[in-house]
Amino acid sequence: MMHLVLADSELELIPEKIAGHPSVRGYRSRILDSSLHHNAMKSLKGGYRRGRPDIVHISLLVAMESILNREGMLRVYIHTRGDTVIYINPETRIIKNYGRFKGLMQQLLERGRVPSNGEALMEARNETLAQLLEKLDGRKILFSPEGKRGSMGEIMEEDVVCIIGGFPHGDFLSPVYDMADEVVSIYHEVLPAWTVVMEAIVSYENKFIFRQP
Amino acid sequence: MMHLVLADSELELIPEKIAGHPSVRGYRSRILDSSLHHNAMKSLKGGYRRGRPDIVHISLLVAMESILNREGMLRVYIHTRGDTVIYINPETRIIKNYGRFKGLMQQLLERGRVPSNGEALMEARNETLAQLLEKLDGRKILFSPEGKRGSMGEIMEEDVVCIIGGFPHGDFLSPVYDMADEVVSIYHEVLPAWTVVMEAIVSYENKFIFRQP
Repeated sequence: MMHLVLADSELELIPEKIAGHPSVRGYRSRILDSSLHHNAMKSLKGGYRRGRPDIVHISLLVAMESILNREGMLRVYIHTRGDTVIYINPETRIIKNYGRFKGLMQQLLERGRVPSNGEALMEARNETLAQLLEKLDGRKILFSPEGKRGSMGEIMEEDVVCIIGGFPHGDFLSPVYDMADEVVSIYHEVLPAWTVVMEAIVSYENKFIFRQP
Repeated sequence: MMHLVLADSELELIPEKIAGHPSVRGYRSRILDSSLHHNAMKSLKGGYRRGRPDIVHISLLVAMESILNREGMLRVYIHTRGDTVIYINPETRIIKNYGRFKGLMQQLLERGRVPSNGEALMEARNETLAQLLEKLDGRKILFSPEGKRGSMGEIMEEDVVCIIGGFPHGDFLSPVYDMADEVVSIYHEVLPAWTVVMEAIVSYENKFIFRQP
């Protein structure tokens, strides 16, 4: 089983502090989005990196539609800067339309689950990254440009927890370096979250599902 | 070098026939989008599969941000249902915001290139899939659920042309089965375009860049 954790993801509701700003008021969605709210965000602490639901969206589309997930060997968690952890049912089909995806994330962060009735497809809990990682079995590999250079194929173990930053640049906010068994860099340039997600997933598939040379 | 061709992609401007429909008039973007225009699209031939710029967007984000592209070993082409081929400069950074991406696609389909001045990052030419494929060197592999079951690692050759459908369901519209050297199915379920894109790219990287066991 691979557990995939998108850590310190820049997904949040619009903070109270900027809710009245002219660049924010006009929009219906209450999810912070730097491509819409960048003017208001200048006054937010860490505003230069916040408001990136697009990174979560693309990473989820890559992960949840993968062969690994279809084979039942993947579990995905979104940990946010606000210490919310979103648990995703492996059966979930991620909405492809970005606007609708943000609507779903808003509902999830406001109500704690979607859909409101029946079996939850996504559930949001107040949890730190440390609390989440404690529960997951497998070797904990943190992907970071700060890590030792390594190749996916060699790193992957059958039970593995892959921790990937869900933010555009900068470093992890959570004290994640203390929680990882290994810190690995797979490339000499910074890669977007979803690129590391796809590298991890396909390399795992090739090693443990297709058992390719 | 890997040439990646997204074939018969469902990317187009809103057809004249439905331009006056109430479900279309309210929107600024002139790119057909089934998540907005589905009511109007019922009267279009093949309307059940058309208007999927999201598939092109996600596939491009996956391909252009990959390690393979950063290593200069990937060329990407979007062939559309209207027989336009979009040539993408490998240096292009794909806009992550979906709304803005559609704006760019509109500009590209209306004016033939973006940006309007200086070196083109994307260029749209009137070309059939056959005309495009004729120009590309390498073994032509068509990915289709109709193909022979095969594994990415075994299929990949150093010079390869991967042809992947850029549509949500149904079959290719272009006579592509006659143009391919091989027709391959990598999984027993239909996969979204970007999942096949990422499987192809990472398997190629592992074989020819990282040369992993």
